[in-house]
Amino acid sequence: MKIEEIGEINLIKHLTTNLNQEYDSSVKLGVGDDAAAIKFSDDHYLLLTVDMLVEGRHFLIDKIQPEQLGHKSLAASLSDIAAMGGSPRYAVISVGWPAYVDLNYTERVYAGLRGLARKFEVNIIGGDTVKAPQLVVDVTVLGEIRKEPITRSGAQPGELIAVTGRVGASAAGLNLLINEQNNKTLSSKTVDALHQAHLTPIPRVKEASLLVKKNIPTSMIDVSDGVVSEINHICSSSGVGGVIYAENLPVDNNTIEAAAYLKEDHLDWALYGGEDYELIFTLPESKVSQARKALSETGTELHIIGKTLSSESGLHLEKEGEVVPLSVKGYDHFHE
Amino acid sequence: MKIEEIGEINLIKHLTTNLNQEYDSSVKLGVGDDAAAIKFSDDHYLLLTVDMLVEGRHFLIDKIQPEQLGHKSLAASLSDIAAMGGSPRYAVISVGWPAYVDLNYTERVYAGLRGLARKFEVNIIGGDTVKAPQLVVDVTVLGEIRKEPITRSGAQPGELIAVTGRVGASAAGLNLLINEQNNKTLSSKTVDALHQAHLTPIPRVKEASLLVKKNIPTSMIDVSDGVVSEINHICSSSGVGGVIYAENLPVDNNTIEAAAYLKEDHLDWALYGGEDYELIFTLPESKVSQARKALSETGTELHIIGKTLSSESGLHLEKEGEVVPLSVKGYDHFHE
Repeated sequence: MKIEEIGEINLIKHLTTNLNQEYDSSVKLGVGDDAAAIKFSDDHYLLLTVDMLVEGRHFLIDKIQPEQLGHKSLAASLSDIAAMGGSPRYAVISVGWPAYVDLNYTERVYAGLRGLARKFEVNIIGGDTVKAPQLVVDVTVLGEIRKEPITRSGAQPGELIAVTGRVGASAAGLNLLINEQNNKTLSSKTVDALHQAHLTPIPRVKEASLLVKKNIPTSMIDVSDGVVSEINHICSSSGVGGVIYAENLPVDNNTIEAAAYLKEDHLDWALYGGEDYELIFTLPESKVSQARKALSETGTELHIIGKTLSSESGLHLEKEGEVVPLSVKGYDHFHE
Repeated sequence: MKIEEIGEINLIKHLTTNLNQEYDSSVKLGVGDDAAAIKFSDDHYLLLTVDMLVEGRHFLIDKIQPEQLGHKSLAASLSDIAAMGGSPRYAVISVGWPAYVDLNYTERVYAGLRGLARKFEVNIIGGDTVKAPQLVVDVTVLGEIRKEPITRSGAQPGELIAVTGRVGASAAGLNLLINEQNNKTLSSKTVDALHQAHLTPIPRVKEASLLVKKNIPTSMIDVSDGVVSEINHICSSSGVGGVIYAENLPVDNNTIEAAAYLKEDHLDWALYGGEDYELIFTLPESKVSQARKALSETGTELHIIGKTLSSESGLHLEKEGEVVPLSVKGYDHFHE
C-alpha cells in the first residue's frame, strides 16, 4: 500500500497505534496532540514536540531567505508548545545541509533560529548537522507548564470557538510568493506584510500563556493546517460538533486585496490555508470578556468564529444565512 | 566558504558559538557534549539529545532492513544518554519518507523503533512524518539522571582509559556489507555477528548506569565516531593528553577474520571505525576492579586501553613498544 493512500496525518496515527498501552504512568499525553506531556510532579508538566521542514515540501529555497527559514522552523514548534498553554524552554535542532548551500547560508539559518529563540527566551542546547540531498530542518522543543496542559479534547457542546489575530494571511503570502509577478496593483507594504505572515510568523506563546493563566480555554490548538482542519481536530478529539461563522473569520485587508488581485477566494484561504500559527480555542460564553481582557496587553485581537454543538451535529459552515456541512481537507503546502 | 572546509563536527560548533552566553541558569550543559543537561532540581537533571540519520550518508537502503534502520536510529540517541550516565525515558521521532517506500516499509521501521524502545522502557511520545526526497530519520531522546551527569571534561592526568565490550566490529560489519560477495571463507555465524554489530547495536545504557551509580567514571563518551576521535574529545575537553595501547584494544575474532578476508587492518577498524556504541571512560586506577565488579551482572567486559597524561603530552598510540603521535580523523560512513 502506498503512503498516499493513508495520508500523512493518518500515517503517524497508524504507526503509533496502541503505543499508549506501552507508556509508563508519567506520560500524560502521548502522540496525537500538539505536544506530548509528561507529568513531572504535581502541577508540573514537561511538553515535548518536534516538527520537520523539508525543502520543496514545506518551503522553496528560492522563495525564503535563510534567516526566515530558521525563524519559521522554530516558530512551528514554539506554536505547538503554545497550543498546550506552555512555555517553550529548550530546543535541539537537526539540520541536513545539501551541497548547494555554503557556510554563510548555514550561519544565516542559525541567525534566524537564534533570533527567534532569544525573543522567547528559548535555550538552543543541542543539535546535529549532517549532509543531505535536500535541506531538512528538524526542531524539537521542550517546554513546561505549571498546571495541567490544555488539550484538543476538552471542549463541551455549547461553547464558543475563538481565534487570535487573523487567518488566511499566510496563505495569501504563499500565493503571492508563488505567483511573484509585477505586483503593481498591490502596495509593497501589503506584499511585505503578507510575505512576513507566511515566512516569519510569530507564535502566540504569550497569548496562550495569558489565556491559560486565567483558566479560559477548555481546549486549544494552533493553526498549522488551516482553520477547518484544526476545528475538526478539536471537535473529533472532544466528541462534539461545531459550526463556523464565515462572516466572523478575521481576514485582514491585505489578504482581501491579495485575493482580489490573484482572483482567489479569501474565505478559502481563511478556512483552508495553513501556517497562520494563530490559536484556536473553545471557551464558555461567560468568559469572552475575560479572554479579551487577558489579551489586552498583547494587542492581539480575539474573534469568536464559531460554536461547539452536540456530537451528532457534525461540523458545519454558516455563510450568508445558510448552513452547509464542511468537508475537511488539510493544508497542502506546495503540491501533493 | 564551503561546508566541507570547516568539517561537519566543527560546523555545529561554529554555528553555536557563544550560544552558552545566552543560556539561562538552568542549562548545566549546552551544545558540545553527548547530550545537553538541564538542572531540574538538586541532583535531578534532564538530558536531551538528537541524532539525524540520512539515507546514503548513514545507511544504504539496500543494505539495511527497515526494522534494523528503526533500531539503529534510536540506538544512536540512547547511546548518547548512556554516555552521560543517564536513563533514556522519552523519544520523539521525525521521519521523512521518500516516494519509493511503501506503507509496509514504514511499519517495519516503526517496529524496529518500538522494539528497542520497549527493551529500554523508553516511551515514544511524539513524532512527525513528512514526504522527503530521501529517507531521513531524526530521533530526539529525553533522559534523566539523579545526580550530576558525566561529561567529557572530567578526566585528570594519570587516570586509566577504559572501554566496554569490543571495538571495530561495526566497521567490520559495514565493510562486509559493502563488499558483499561470496563470503565462502567466513562462516555465516561470523558474518551475521558483524552485520548485527553494525546494523543493530545495543547501546550500553545499563552498563553506564551501573558504573555511574558507583561513581566510577570521571569522564565518559560513547563510540560513535571511532575510538581515537572519542578519546581525543575527552582529552581536549578535559585538558589532558593521552596514550592508547594498541595491543589492549578489544578486537574480537570475528573482526580479525573479516579483516584478514578483506585484506584490511583490524587495528585501523578498532581505532577509526565508528558506530560501535561502546562506552569509553576515564577512571582512577584504584577503581578498576570495582568497575569490573559493577559490570559483572551485565556480562560486558571492560578493557583498559590507555592512560591520560598531562595536557602538553598530546595524544599518542603505543604499539609494539613504539609510541607515535596520533592523527585524529573522524568516522566517514560511506563517502566524504
